[in-house]
Amino acid sequence: MSKNLTTRSEDYSKWYNELVVKADLAENSGVRGCMVIKPYGYAIWEKMQAELDRMFKETGHQNAYFPLFVPKSMFEAEEKNAEGFAKECAVVTHYRLKNDPDRPGKLMVDPNAKLEEELIVRPTSEAIIWSTYKGWVQSYRDLPLLINQWANVVRWEMRTRLFLRTAEFLWQEGHTAHATRKEAIEESEKMMNVYADFAQNFMAIPVVKGLKTETERFAGAEETYCIEALMQDGKALQAGTSHFLGQNFAEAFDVKFANAEGKQEYVWGTSWGVSTRLMGALVMTHSDDQGLVLPPNLAPIQVVVVPIYKTDEQLAQITAEVDKLIADLRKLGISVKFDDRTTQKPGFKFAEWELKGVPVRIAVGPKDIENGTYEVARRDTLTKESKPKEGIAEFISGLLEQIQSDLFNKAFNYRETHITEVNSFDEFTAVLENKGGFVSAHWDGTAATEERIKELTKATIRCIPLDGVEEAGSCVFTGNPSTKRVFFAKAY
Amino acid sequence: MSKNLTTRSEDYSKWYNELVVKADLAENSGVRGCMVIKPYGYAIWEKMQAELDRMFKETGHQNAYFPLFVPKSMFEAEEKNAEGFAKECAVVTHYRLKNDPDRPGKLMVDPNAKLEEELIVRPTSEAIIWSTYKGWVQSYRDLPLLINQWANVVRWEMRTRLFLRTAEFLWQEGHTAHATRKEAIEESEKMMNVYADFAQNFMAIPVVKGLKTETERFAGAEETYCIEALMQDGKALQAGTSHFLGQNFAEAFDVKFANAEGKQEYVWGTSWGVSTRLMGALVMTHSDDQGLVLPPNLAPIQVVVVPIYKTDEQLAQITAEVDKLIADLRKLGISVKFDDRTTQKPGFKFAEWELKGVPVRIAVGPKDIENGTYEVARRDTLTKESKPKEGIAEFISGLLEQIQSDLFNKAFNYRETHITEVNSFDEFTAVLENKGGFVSAHWDGTAATEERIKELTKATIRCIPLDGVEEAGSCVFTGNPSTKRVFFAKAY
Repeated sequence: MSKNLTTRSEDYSKWYNELVVKADLAENSGVRGCMVIKPYGYAIWEKMQAELDRMFKETGHQNAYFPLFVPKSMFEAEEKNAEGFAKECAVVTHYRLKNDPDRPGKLMVDPNAKLEEELIVRPTSEAIIWSTYKGWVQSYRDLPLLINQWANVVRWEMRTRLFLRTAEFLWQEGHTAHATRKEAIEESEKMMNVYADFAQNFMAIPVVKGLKTETERFAGAEETYCIEALMQDGKALQAGTSHFLGQNFAEAFDVKFANAEGKQEYVWGTSWGVSTRLMGALVMTHSDDQGLVLPPNLAPIQVVVVPIYKTDEQLAQITAEVDKLIADLRKLGISVKFDDRTTQKPGFKFAEWELKGVPVRIAVGPKDIENGTYEVARRDTLTKESKPKEGIAEFISGLLEQIQSDLFNKAFNYRETHITEVNSFDEFTAVLENKGGFVSAHWDGTAATEERIKELTKATIRCIPLDGVEEAGSCVFTGNPSTKRVFFAKAY
Repeated sequence: MSKNLTTRSEDYSKWYNELVVKADLAENSGVRGCMVIKPYGYAIWEKMQAELDRMFKETGHQNAYFPLFVPKSMFEAEEKNAEGFAKECAVVTHYRLKNDPDRPGKLMVDPNAKLEEELIVRPTSEAIIWSTYKGWVQSYRDLPLLINQWANVVRWEMRTRLFLRTAEFLWQEGHTAHATRKEAIEESEKMMNVYADFAQNFMAIPVVKGLKTETERFAGAEETYCIEALMQDGKALQAGTSHFLGQNFAEAFDVKFANAEGKQEYVWGTSWGVSTRLMGALVMTHSDDQGLVLPPNLAPIQVVVVPIYKTDEQLAQITAEVDKLIADLRKLGISVKFDDRTTQKPGFKFAEWELKGVPVRIAVGPKDIENGTYEVARRDTLTKESKPKEGIAEFISGLLEQIQSDLFNKAFNYRETHITEVNSFDEFTAVLENKGGFVSAHWDGTAATEERIKELTKATIRCIPLDGVEEAGSCVFTGNPSTKRVFFAKAY
């Protein structure tokens, strides 16, 4: 198959858009800003969901489901949150269409079916969930509430890109309620760590854990923890956030509990989420000019087997051989596809599975049968070698683990060589322009400086790294004193 | 705990509503007609989802995700479908709120952010999906498309009831495209059979498979297959539908393919769905005046272990014993909860787990330790017996299977004794009023008669059973000739 993929060096952004569509991950729909997630892309998302869901349940969370709509007045209750989100959202104002008398066969909004109060399609669910928690919490015995929801949300983005920024997207949102400030902070940190663990060990994406500045914080939170990843073009991507909400939502929705002494207190909250945006991070971290590169943990097909033959007899012989191979691989929990399409040539198949990022390809021809070997190709390195069929299943199993860790290491090395300490604004702009990546710099802690740097360079403070050391320094922009470096970057 | 549950004989409808709330399945939200599915209810839904998803994938289907919104003009394309659905739906007309200058801290719809074209929140996704399929199908090689979506949908119901009829509900919707009429019909029938298999073998709910009459058919379908269940109050409940769409949507959205001879043809479609409504069917089929009765396949907790003790020493002794029991049960794949709360008495715990429908309860007290026994109680029969601890895990495993099949048989017997053949309209109304259930009667095949009977009795034709025999008869209402009996019932 002809891939005709723009290369990364030609146009990274175009490469990304083309790849997402050509590899059958997603496409734009007939609805402004909304995407269709295609079966191959959705299968990857399902693997992410399954692993995250397992991790959430292992840390004591349960799933539930809350309404899609939030009445306007409910949304207004937590003012900062409303201010941050209500500006660009889908608003339901009517509950009926009717036949348009002037245009036969066409419909119009029924003016008699106007809602008394407008409904907002949830951009996030704190409001609806905290209004519900009020009824669930009376005493300290009802705490903590550890709840997660898998859902769609809508934010009316004007400039959209598949997975990275869409009007509707899929995500999970955890919403927890606790008796103490300390416990809520621990929960926020725990979930940030769950996300980091997931990104690194499952998606093979190294991340920096940190805190957002006040400017970049979630509207309504006291503190926002985040994990930040670095894409191959040197731009950062926020991969997940976990918010310590303090008592803000409890106060807004009057959620109180009787403590062990019978005294009424507001509960402490957290919320945390990751979304289909992670699909974008996945593509941009590992893939190359030949197409997708998927870490084995996330690949819907881990191994593809392609027969090379000229005669039907050869195909029959290969198929008999391959049947056993497939059975052996499946016994080890490996997902395999035997691509025995007769309508396509091997070269076409090779290119197609390369484009789709299948980690390992095994080719079997008459020569292999003769020699008792298989040709094993790695997608990530685009290398291949001949392997004896003896013990091949175990070899492949080990190879998949190797690929998973090699991908992480490759991304980690890229990331490590793209964290640059700078001590002047000239250095700052030079690194940002010529090299990209995280620019580690002292900052005076003011929103004004942060804003000015953003205006001048388009770089934002991605996070204040949690493992950063205290050191005396002066702000790279104003020269004012600073005690810790922060990470700036251009970002998705 | 005090249950204070209205009994079924007192008020079946009230019993249902109370049970759903008290057993922590769901509750009404602050948003008109929308429910909150609570963690315990959602855990049951997750079990349904996992099993259905497995069955769909085993029959060759893949999951994907399509937009929540459908532009009005897209919805209009298939006129019958639009006519059937667009009347009561949530309509998004604006994409922004702004601060209300007259009411500080409050929001108002921004009149400058009116959408050029209104968006409908999907009541079902045929329109958006078929508009997408147009781009996916060129040749017969692209067919069949076998796709399923797990999603939320919204229908603006005026009278809502938890799970049974809510404005927003969760469901899956399969949408397939085929090269031939025959293949599409086979698919519709296959999925009806998957649903029936799921209802009967997994949910322990016997169902009648049948066809809907033209009046009751899905708007835009040529044929609607359904499974119909019978609740304990003698009312029927449509538990799932599978539609043969003919070429209606292909024509409306211009979805054509080149057949093997290179000739352009419209594709043939199906769609099929089940929803959180099944939660209502589950409750109303098996539960009793003490609370939920859950089939073991669907129970989030299959076995609860309650310690009976007076002293801490006794509790320690029981706990040591129970740890091994729990490990043995888990090894057999059984989900167990050890209810060692110190804040509640055993009687309270018994009542709580009865209310929540846990299939098996094991009580362990000092006497049991002494005798080497456990007290094993069945939720469905409310019976208990003492069992030797030797081989207890295997006994429990067998007991769970027994309960699963007993529940099905009980429901099946009820259903079988509530299918009544009638041959006059007097009989018809008498059976309907005094006994309920399915009334098997001859019908002249006209929508007029169907409508008239509905007006007079509130009974609708639930289905034309697929296993019905051809027999000469006369319509129970008009006396006109008929060749087959159909099933009438009052329905949810």
